[in-house]
Amino acid sequence: MRIGDAGAERAVVRVDDDGYVDVSDLGDRFFAAPEEFREAVDARIAAGRVAPFAGERIGAPIPRPHQIVCIGLNYRDHAAETGQAVPDEPILFTKSPNTLVGPNDDVRQPRGSTKLDWEVELGIVIGRRAGYLEDHDAARAAIAGWVVCNDISERAFQIERGGQWSKGKSAETFNPAGPWLVTPDEVPDVSALGLWLDVNGVRRQTGSTATMVFDPYEIVRYLSQFMVLEPGDLINTGTPPGVAMGLDPSPWLRPGDVMELGIDGLGSQRQTVVAAR
Amino acid sequence: MRIGDAGAERAVVRVDDDGYVDVSDLGDRFFAAPEEFREAVDARIAAGRVAPFAGERIGAPIPRPHQIVCIGLNYRDHAAETGQAVPDEPILFTKSPNTLVGPNDDVRQPRGSTKLDWEVELGIVIGRRAGYLEDHDAARAAIAGWVVCNDISERAFQIERGGQWSKGKSAETFNPAGPWLVTPDEVPDVSALGLWLDVNGVRRQTGSTATMVFDPYEIVRYLSQFMVLEPGDLINTGTPPGVAMGLDPSPWLRPGDVMELGIDGLGSQRQTVVAAR
Repeated sequence: MRIGDAGAERAVVRVDDDGYVDVSDLGDRFFAAPEEFREAVDARIAAGRVAPFAGERIGAPIPRPHQIVCIGLNYRDHAAETGQAVPDEPILFTKSPNTLVGPNDDVRQPRGSTKLDWEVELGIVIGRRAGYLEDHDAARAAIAGWVVCNDISERAFQIERGGQWSKGKSAETFNPAGPWLVTPDEVPDVSALGLWLDVNGVRRQTGSTATMVFDPYEIVRYLSQFMVLEPGDLINTGTPPGVAMGLDPSPWLRPGDVMELGIDGLGSQRQTVVAAR
Repeated sequence: MRIGDAGAERAVVRVDDDGYVDVSDLGDRFFAAPEEFREAVDARIAAGRVAPFAGERIGAPIPRPHQIVCIGLNYRDHAAETGQAVPDEPILFTKSPNTLVGPNDDVRQPRGSTKLDWEVELGIVIGRRAGYLEDHDAARAAIAGWVVCNDISERAFQIERGGQWSKGKSAETFNPAGPWLVTPDEVPDVSALGLWLDVNGVRRQTGSTATMVFDPYEIVRYLSQFMVLEPGDLINTGTPPGVAMGLDPSPWLRPGDVMELGIDGLGSQRQTVVAAR
């Protein structure tokens, strides 16, 4: 995790609901030397260096990444919902890296926005530089962990303003992430995780990573054929059914709305929508 | 400029063809305090601290940016060439930031590539954090300078592999930039610059920024409505006619081909295409 005020977060390892180990002195060792990092954490726990959480703000669990890549229409049931064909190959688009915020930070509706939407997604965090990965085993080795993301979208900007989707995906605060990065050893089967999202207490999205068209290992292998992935890069893997765009009438988000979302074993988020500043 | 081996470049200010002032100790002052930066450079020139160029490699003139944003179909004559309508609003897409290389570095053809193409473009380098810019004067104040870019594209990846253009724009070495960042005061009229590109000595692209659909100030103002631009961000503003995709038959790039390109007053580049590694 990374906790503390925005822009001044420090890295910690969550031990349980109550306590954490400070690892802010270990710099990028989580990515550069994960075994050494793990040994250092174990030694600190053994030495009793566990501090209690004290209500600190939670930031995104990774610093701003080199890139945020997203996969579109990657759930069979979501593709059906939006009236689009299941893609033959992963559809990729991007979000500006400065969209990354903490899991409980406010989501700001952009000026001129009329169709603000939610998307609970499984995020992949890349652990090592990766190009031309040969197979799913190589992809597995390139993954540092999993994270909950909300791929906030402005559908009018995305679809009605000419061209490519990035235009509706890149406004400030459009990528809440966290609360935790969960390492792969703590997730028995990433293709059997439940996902959910509520708006104002009404369940809107319910899904499972079991209905993904392309699983996370195929996504990472595939992307590495077209670009070089770097440690800390974030990949949002698509959303299950239940987005506002798929409902009639569409209950677009407005200031004051509250989103709560989560993924089995990866924690949960809560954001309030506020007006553009 | 930034000169030196890849990954170990140092920042310098070019005085003339023969000499430069080292500014590697000034860190990010070019962006953070441009007036102070300029005064420091003037003082060093006055003090005779001008070193001769000694055949150093030239890197991209900016470090890896937070984001690379591109504008598609932004020349009226290029839109006509590709059989597409002139867009009503700027079309944006992105390139992975790690595509950035020096102006004379090799361009690597990706594995599986069959339709490798060139695009000479005017690049905008952002000078300050910019969101919701109100008008062209505000956009002008947010621009740190201009740079030559080659927006290398793999057309099969871009168009025939499902969905969004980024897939064909993000391979390693796909964004040669430089040789210089030219500050706005040294470019009398950015909307009257000639652009050209040769492949193996054959002139392929000839154009002028005068035929842009959206000029650089409108592009920066427009983008800032959809995302927050940051100091050092790079915006490629589209290409004039003459890309391989617009020719019949299309002379797609192959290993051994040499591209030479430039923009009036902004310098020139020369890349050799090499096979994927």
